[in-house]
Amino acid sequence: MWNFLTAGESHGKALTAIIEGLPAGLELDEQYINTALARRQAGYGRSERMKIEKDKVKILSGLKNGLTIGSPVCLLIENKAFKEDIPKVTCPRPGHADLSGIIKYNQDDIIPVSERASARETAIRVAVGAVAAKFLEEFKIKIFSHVISIGAIKRDAYPTSPTRGKDDKVEYYLNLAQKAEQSSLRCVDPETTKKMEAAIDNAKEKGDSLGGIFEVIALNMPVGLGTCMHWGKRLDALLAYAIMSIPGIKGVEIGTAYENSALPGSQVHDEIFFNEESIYAFPAKSIYRITNNAGGIEGGISNGEPVIIRGAMKPIPTLANPLQTIDLQH
Amino acid sequence: MWNFLTAGESHGKALTAIIEGLPAGLELDEQYINTALARRQAGYGRSERMKIEKDKVKILSGLKNGLTIGSPVCLLIENKAFKEDIPKVTCPRPGHADLSGIIKYNQDDIIPVSERASARETAIRVAVGAVAAKFLEEFKIKIFSHVISIGAIKRDAYPTSPTRGKDDKVEYYLNLAQKAEQSSLRCVDPETTKKMEAAIDNAKEKGDSLGGIFEVIALNMPVGLGTCMHWGKRLDALLAYAIMSIPGIKGVEIGTAYENSALPGSQVHDEIFFNEESIYAFPAKSIYRITNNAGGIEGGISNGEPVIIRGAMKPIPTLANPLQTIDLQH
Amino acid sequence: MWNFLTAGESHGKALTAIIEGLPAGLELDEQYINTALARRQAGYGRSERMKIEKDKVKILSGLKNGLTIGSPVCLLIENKAFKEDIPKVTCPRPGHADLSGIIKYNQDDIIPVSERASARETAIRVAVGAVAAKFLEEFKIKIFSHVISIGAIKRDAYPTSPTRGKDDKVEYYLNLAQKAEQSSLRCVDPETTKKMEAAIDNAKEKGDSLGGIFEVIALNMPVGLGTCMHWGKRLDALLAYAIMSIPGIKGVEIGTAYENSALPGSQVHDEIFFNEESIYAFPAKSIYRITNNAGGIEGGISNGEPVIIRGAMKPIPTLANPLQTIDLQH
Amino acid sequence: MWNFLTAGESHGKALTAIIEGLPAGLELDEQYINTALARRQAGYGRSERMKIEKDKVKILSGLKNGLTIGSPVCLLIENKAFKEDIPKVTCPRPGHADLSGIIKYNQDDIIPVSERASARETAIRVAVGAVAAKFLEEFKIKIFSHVISIGAIKRDAYPTSPTRGKDDKVEYYLNLAQKAEQSSLRCVDPETTKKMEAAIDNAKEKGDSLGGIFEVIALNMPVGLGTCMHWGKRLDALLAYAIMSIPGIKGVEIGTAYENSALPGSQVHDEIFFNEESIYAFPAKSIYRITNNAGGIEGGISNGEPVIIRGAMKPIPTLANPLQTIDLQH
Repeated sequence: MWNFLTAGESHGKALTAIIEGLPAGLELDEQYINTALARRQAGYGRSERMKIEKDKVKILSGLKNGLTIGSPVCLLIENKAFKEDIPKVTCPRPGHADLSGIIKYNQDDIIPVSERASARETAIRVAVGAVAAKFLEEFKIKIFSHVISIGAIKRDAYPTSPTRGKDDKVEYYLNLAQKAEQSSLRCVDPETTKKMEAAIDNAKEKGDSLGGIFEVIALNMPVGLGTCMHWGKRLDALLAYAIMSIPGIKGVEIGTAYENSALPGSQVHDEIFFNEESIYAFPAKSIYRITNNAGGIEGGISNGEPVIIRGAMKPIPTLANPLQTIDLQH
Repeated sequence: MWNFLTAGESHGKALTAIIEGLPAGLELDEQYINTALARRQAGYGRSERMKIEKDKVKILSGLKNGLTIGSPVCLLIENKAFKEDIPKVTCPRPGHADLSGIIKYNQDDIIPVSERASARETAIRVAVGAVAAKFLEEFKIKIFSHVISIGAIKRDAYPTSPTRGKDDKVEYYLNLAQKAEQSSLRCVDPETTKKMEAAIDNAKEKGDSLGGIFEVIALNMPVGLGTCMHWGKRLDALLAYAIMSIPGIKGVEIGTAYENSALPGSQVHDEIFFNEESIYAFPAKSIYRITNNAGGIEGGISNGEPVIIRGAMKPIPTLANPLQTIDLQH
Repeated sequence: MWNFLTAGESHGKALTAIIEGLPAGLELDEQYINTALARRQAGYGRSERMKIEKDKVKILSGLKNGLTIGSPVCLLIENKAFKEDIPKVTCPRPGHADLSGIIKYNQDDIIPVSERASARETAIRVAVGAVAAKFLEEFKIKIFSHVISIGAIKRDAYPTSPTRGKDDKVEYYLNLAQKAEQSSLRCVDPETTKKMEAAIDNAKEKGDSLGGIFEVIALNMPVGLGTCMHWGKRLDALLAYAIMSIPGIKGVEIGTAYENSALPGSQVHDEIFFNEESIYAFPAKSIYRITNNAGGIEGGISNGEPVIIRGAMKPIPTLANPLQTIDLQH
Repeated sequence: MWNFLTAGESHGKALTAIIEGLPAGLELDEQYINTALARRQAGYGRSERMKIEKDKVKILSGLKNGLTIGSPVCLLIENKAFKEDIPKVTCPRPGHADLSGIIKYNQDDIIPVSERASARETAIRVAVGAVAAKFLEEFKIKIFSHVISIGAIKRDAYPTSPTRGKDDKVEYYLNLAQKAEQSSLRCVDPETTKKMEAAIDNAKEKGDSLGGIFEVIALNMPVGLGTCMHWGKRLDALLAYAIMSIPGIKGVEIGTAYENSALPGSQVHDEIFFNEESIYAFPAKSIYRITNNAGGIEGGISNGEPVIIRGAMKPIPTLANPLQTIDLQH
């Protein structure tokens, strides 16, 4: 069983994480993680902070000769924007942890709260995620993500892979992944990317911000992760927990759950077929689906189809043109 | 810290749960839980099973003289539909745990999987939830739920409570709750209820099924539940985990997160005001919001507003007019 | 990962447990568990309660056709000594949870505390343990226990198995196990058993009670359970936690840790030898030890030798001739 | 709820820990922790490594202006003895994690195992413990430890504090603590200290090693920590888990559990008295005990008396004059 803790404030000395439970013998290097960190820092309309930090990870423990040894892996990212003293802030920003945080932690300054509630924390999570991705690669599981919408600009639904074979589906999605990486906003459609860029420019001009919806897809999933047997061990529940724990995420769905909730069962559930040619092969291989409306999870268990999970992010609450708020000093 | 485990199969002897961590001195009786169980069994278009079972709970432990004593509470619901032998089933239903389950648990019969993956498990969860609700009542926290949509029939957005005072909002929502309880489908709007009933009748005729979206609202929430400090302890993440762990639920959002993701930040984040008259009162009381787009959670922490969480349920996968599937015997 | 919760009071309706995480396909029946329960109720000098209850378990869930199906197993033991009303008790017994318990749970009656703190809870733990033992049998792991001392009567140290082969050691210990089962007090030595019986009779006459030391031995252990890598996952730490969680147990040691702490390292650590004949076999088989002072665990990891763990139990605090205490009513 | 993870190898770049769940507002500084680290490095007969490292902690996160802010605290101790390349070792030391570790983690070199299994890990645990001690100080809880025996040299039992008042007991133990700090081996008795030093010298000459028994005492404990209600939440079980998780510790007892197991109940259980003068005061204050054989825990709950826990450490397995072992290369 994996576990990890993260630590670190936005302008503190460093962000750190300790990962428990990795097996021995996994190849791991800082460069692999740094590539993920650089990918995090790209993105049209990124904040000034993104330009200051060029995040580089240090692996402080857990390796020998480039291989994990079964001991905890400690990751550290130094903050270039470290500041010893940050002036007191007393106006809580709507949409932030500010107001609830100072009440909970009995503060008269918002900084101690906002320093930890900052999106900067996601840098070390990306580093932890890169380690996880490296581990999953051992099982040929590939994970990628792309952007479905930014503000009101939403790309058209992409067609479900029309092919029956597992390998064909993987190819279809890897092609999508490649397109996403070519976009400044990781949107698979160039036309939509342009509209999204314009929407961002427009929001910036107004001192406003935007949210959006993204999709994470895991390919080459084995059958049988998660279970219907115990409420706390369903794969969908665990993934919802993980995605919703990312700052700013307020909605999660497996596949297109919201759309599916408006359709009759006959149009949603993924029919099951035998692959006549390979009838004697291992069941999971000789059985196939065409559709994947379930997003790869049935009854809380992975069913071998790509696992598809979407997250809805709220518009960033730090606005250049701020909303009405109060000043705690008055 | 609370914890609970549930056990029991659909046609097994009983459903049971053990709840760990309740304090001593909480009033609890079977009737209170039975009321919640009866409420679960109402609902237009309910299955035949619902008519067979009139669920009654037995509290096997944890009480003395009607008060909890700090020890684990064991709940038991006998299954009236107990069956010793259930004929083997070999055609996995699309949308169910059937196919993944038999591969994971190495079965050649779907029954051992479907017996546990059944929605019947929610009966004991409702009983556990009733105990939780009783506990929360000690803090004046009231929880209710209502149905937003069934299939394509969706009720219009209800207006956000226009009043500023906490008590006014509570009154507004309690009124909604009352309306929901008067509907055969727990929809707050009678017109929409009729349309939903018709949609259900229509689906039944076709041997089809429907899903929908529901909303759970917690009133009188204190400020400060959950935290922005630790990824695994954010209130929104924990609620998403709990909601997504219910069989059939495939999407979760806090407030109207999906709609909010398409709006600019200036229209989403809830402005903060001082209540001039009570300026010297406890901060959380003298500060108010008009809107509650955040669904009562900012930065993973409850902010004192009603906590609003929505779940999207897939159409029930057991269809009278079944979809294409395979027979594992062939 | 296994987990279990127990519930039930001494004179409540029933004791129950839910076990989470068992695999599918394990043979399990009530008779197997009942044998363990009967074994628990034997023992020279047992209390009157033991004579009233002839514990029988009901397996309420988790099985089909005598095999587990991967779902939670719920166990229930009815209390024959169920009592609706138990008169209030206000004199806390020294050595019991009574006094701390009523302060913690804010009670003016000891019953709600002592009903749960009772040794009766160990009945359902024995049932859970029987399920665990059945699971371990799949891996040929056999667990038995015997009594080292009762009060001041202690049996002589039994010689460490002098043989080098794993199978010889297993035979040696199985022989011990058989001897233990023949004793009224599960002591492997008949002479010592008699002295222990006399000590018990003597204590009874004086209205006094005795404690003692027992030893649990697990045979055919694989190499590699537990780890030195994470503080919370060391096998010795997890076993100490489990043993110390049994009511009345106040001390735990792996092997003869207390004696070993007084010896030089050269007399404690178990030398490692190669078995020349089987040099090409799997390492764990071709390597052997003669001694097992480590009690089968080195660095928090099982080393393939029998795991030996001892528990020290305090004298039972309920004395026929009670100690000085107070009356909370005065 | 507290949680922490540690990371780091003996000759790696650094040892680190992340602590989750500290409240905001706790004063914390590196000097406080460094004092505990220096205390760890004292001790007669310490290894050469101890002389190389002068451990200093860096607090990387969790503080603002010297106060915790509720976010995770990350601690880092740099290793002065950092080595990029460590020659391969193929002879597993009896008593170490070496042999089991390389089998479990599939290594042909002992270094990756022994680097993490090293006692060096206790440095960062001492740092975490210092943070815990600082937190407990807020509740006036003071924790100290002293050495009962080293090898065969054991100090005489110290008399139980003969006084009835809580404050008198605290004074008695604080006096013991002071004596322990004056000893080169933290033994409260100067005569015994000398004998222990001689035993260490003697073992060193022979290339041998010694173990011993220590005692940890927590003063000013509140009533009610831990519970008899849930098997996994008993204070004694949790403490046994924590103590046994320290490398080298193989035995744990609450109070003098092993001695007590040989005595009749009438001589073990701590009688309860009313303090006539303060009859109207809060119960826990007006009630008192003279003895504390229970070691401050009854029924898994702290009873307000000093909590006393002992650990038995095995002789260090690294011997200058090594034991018989094998070479994995042959």
